[in-house]
Amino acid sequence: MSSRYDDFQAFRTRLNERILGEGTADRPSGTLNTKRFFTLDGNCYKAGALDVKTKELLGLVASMVLRCDDCIAYHIDQCLKAGCTPAELFEAFDVALIVGGSIVIPHLRRGVEFMDEVVGRGDGAQSG
Amino acid sequence: MSSRYDDFQAFRTRLNERILGEGTADRPSGTLNTKRFFTLDGNCYKAGALDVKTKELLGLVASMVLRCDDCIAYHIDQCLKAGCTPAELFEAFDVALIVGGSIVIPHLRRGVEFMDEVVGRGDGAQSG
Amino acid sequence: MSSRYDDFQAFRTRLNERILGEGTADRPSGTLNTKRFFTLDGNCYKAGALDVKTKELLGLVASMVLRCDDCIAYHIDQCLKAGCTPAELFEAFDVALIVGGSIVIPHLRRGVEFMDEVVGRGDGAQSG
Amino acid sequence: MSSRYDDFQAFRTRLNERILGEGTADRPSGTLNTKRFFTLDGNCYKAGALDVKTKELLGLVASMVLRCDDCIAYHIDQCLKAGCTPAELFEAFDVALIVGGSIVIPHLRRGVEFMDEVVGRGDGAQSG
Amino acid sequence: MSSRYDDFQAFRTRLNERILGEGTADRPSGTLNTKRFFTLDGNCYKAGALDVKTKELLGLVASMVLRCDDCIAYHIDQCLKAGCTPAELFEAFDVALIVGGSIVIPHLRRGVEFMDEVVGRGDGAQSG
Amino acid sequence: MSSRYDDFQAFRTRLNERILGEGTADRPSGTLNTKRFFTLDGNCYKAGALDVKTKELLGLVASMVLRCDDCIAYHIDQCLKAGCTPAELFEAFDVALIVGGSIVIPHLRRGVEFMDEVVGRGDGAQSG
Repeated sequence: MSSRYDDFQAFRTRLNERILGEGTADRPSGTLNTKRFFTLDGNCYKAGALDVKTKELLGLVASMVLRCDDCIAYHIDQCLKAGCTPAELFEAFDVALIVGGSIVIPHLRRGVEFMDEVVGRGDGAQSG
Repeated sequence: MSSRYDDFQAFRTRLNERILGEGTADRPSGTLNTKRFFTLDGNCYKAGALDVKTKELLGLVASMVLRCDDCIAYHIDQCLKAGCTPAELFEAFDVALIVGGSIVIPHLRRGVEFMDEVVGRGDGAQSG
Repeated sequence: MSSRYDDFQAFRTRLNERILGEGTADRPSGTLNTKRFFTLDGNCYKAGALDVKTKELLGLVASMVLRCDDCIAYHIDQCLKAGCTPAELFEAFDVALIVGGSIVIPHLRRGVEFMDEVVGRGDGAQSG
Repeated sequence: MSSRYDDFQAFRTRLNERILGEGTADRPSGTLNTKRFFTLDGNCYKAGALDVKTKELLGLVASMVLRCDDCIAYHIDQCLKAGCTPAELFEAFDVALIVGGSIVIPHLRRGVEFMDEVVGRGDGAQSG
Repeated sequence: MSSRYDDFQAFRTRLNERILGEGTADRPSGTLNTKRFFTLDGNCYKAGALDVKTKELLGLVASMVLRCDDCIAYHIDQCLKAGCTPAELFEAFDVALIVGGSIVIPHLRRGVEFMDEVVGRGDGAQSG
Repeated sequence: MSSRYDDFQAFRTRLNERILGEGTADRPSGTLNTKRFFTLDGNCYKAGALDVKTKELLGLVASMVLRCDDCIAYHIDQCLKAGCTPAELFEAFDVALIVGGSIVIPHLRRGVEFMDEVVGRGDGAQSG
């Protein structure tokens, strides 16, 4: 049975290939600007003055207050891979909840369910 | 066959128990701040200088202009339980539509369908 | 000395005349669609199944969660004219604060200051 | 098998009839203000100083930065019917992506998938 | 006497130099990612499948529904320089107003005042 | 001559006293719910599983993507007090810029100007 995690990754991969691929005259792909934006998006989460874990937490909270379920799921996965614990994630959720208000709650529920699924798979390095 | 109303309530209940429950070291629940925010969220709709019906209408319109389907569904249900009629709800929808613009329309459609389902169940006290 | 209230009303009146006026070929005013939208905006706060006071409170909370200072000021003024008390306004502010989060706080501060100025003028019908 | 396009059109049509229809005392439809807003919404995309194609592109980019999948789907369909090519749509997507940020990306993915479905049906007049 | 147009351009120029300049160890400027984003932002309004005028109108409407006065002012200026007439701008304003709702009105007022100032300076190529 | 920093702190202090103070029957202050929300807002930035510096960075990025100048200024000040360097702040700005898009740029400009003012005062503990 497919999981939300697998569905999410499969759709993301398929459409990224469609948008970032070569395209044809009849079926153009994204423009050079589109592709540069995707590259820049990846680059800004790389380690620099701030480490990857902190940057992924920033991406997570930004996604929660802007209320995008796919972005929240993506950054929860990245945070867990970068070593965040669920206890740390819940504190990041709190900042999003207080800054963004109760309108964030339905996204929090779906985010917690997704976090539990990712933790349950045991792919990451996180611990309670 | 499950309804949108039943699905919504079941998911909401299950995740609220997950977030507001006790948790364990391996599987922590929401923090004390998370729990206090949920309590505060419930408290601000209780009768005071304004009555429950007015406050639920305020919550509904806030949810519509911020465009959260789950929040809209929740407050439509609460408004009907507090005695709002569909005619009153349609006037509240109008304020949300005019303030928030045509971007609200898809949420209005889903909200009207949800309202019709709740009214059709006959659990509330509302009349046309 | 000019007050925020007077400045706000003067700017609003001057630009509404510019947008809703007749215009010339060289200096067109708003389109028929613009003008119809302004009319519709006024109409949706008129008494119907819900009374004016409730509708103005709905407009106020919608404006707060969308964080528009001018809209907040306008609806605070209209709420006070419709008979809302400051105690009722503070409860409406709470719904906006809980739904919209701490990002609403700077607008709450400016809204409270504006409310105090309007109450201090004694033009309205409100009492504590 | 039903497509996303067919599902979207069927739901939209059914609920618009519910909201804009006559209604009864027991089951009221949208108010006169609701209906006027829907009319105004349709009117503002008609040809004037700007042509239909430009206006639909404006509606599309507005929908993308406000992140409403149904509105994005609707305007992609209208843009293709007004003669936009996929290459033009990708440049409009870029403006939305740069103005609105990476939070737009999940909506871009679903928009591209929808565009491909509409182009694949061959109902419109567009070419690559 | 300084105008809103002059103040806006002076502040924008000064801070862009601060952010995009070389910086020092004690006073760093924006990162390479910051600078690339600014470049990408400029590039996406260049002529391609869509012309500059259309792209600037897209940027304007995106800015209006997201309600950023500085962005609105910037794109009004660019639209006028690209040959838009005030009549065309008012139709673009309408799309923003209908999609984004009455919350856009205060930004519309300030946008119209800014448009009148720019048109009055006669720097551009627009005519009524 | 007053600075933006001083003006901001003075207004914030004065209105917080108005809202969180005791009030009178004629001039009520914020409700118990208002006051609890302010307390909760303060509590969620205290050290826990995440340290204060990380939490303030989360608050900053959330404020930037939601585009509230006062909130951005407040969290820049708190980040500097918690030991963030301008180089770290610029990387946090990047996440906000990429997630939130070019609509964040005017707020970035004002944020950088504010950061420079705070750093120039030398009240904090930050270094380049």
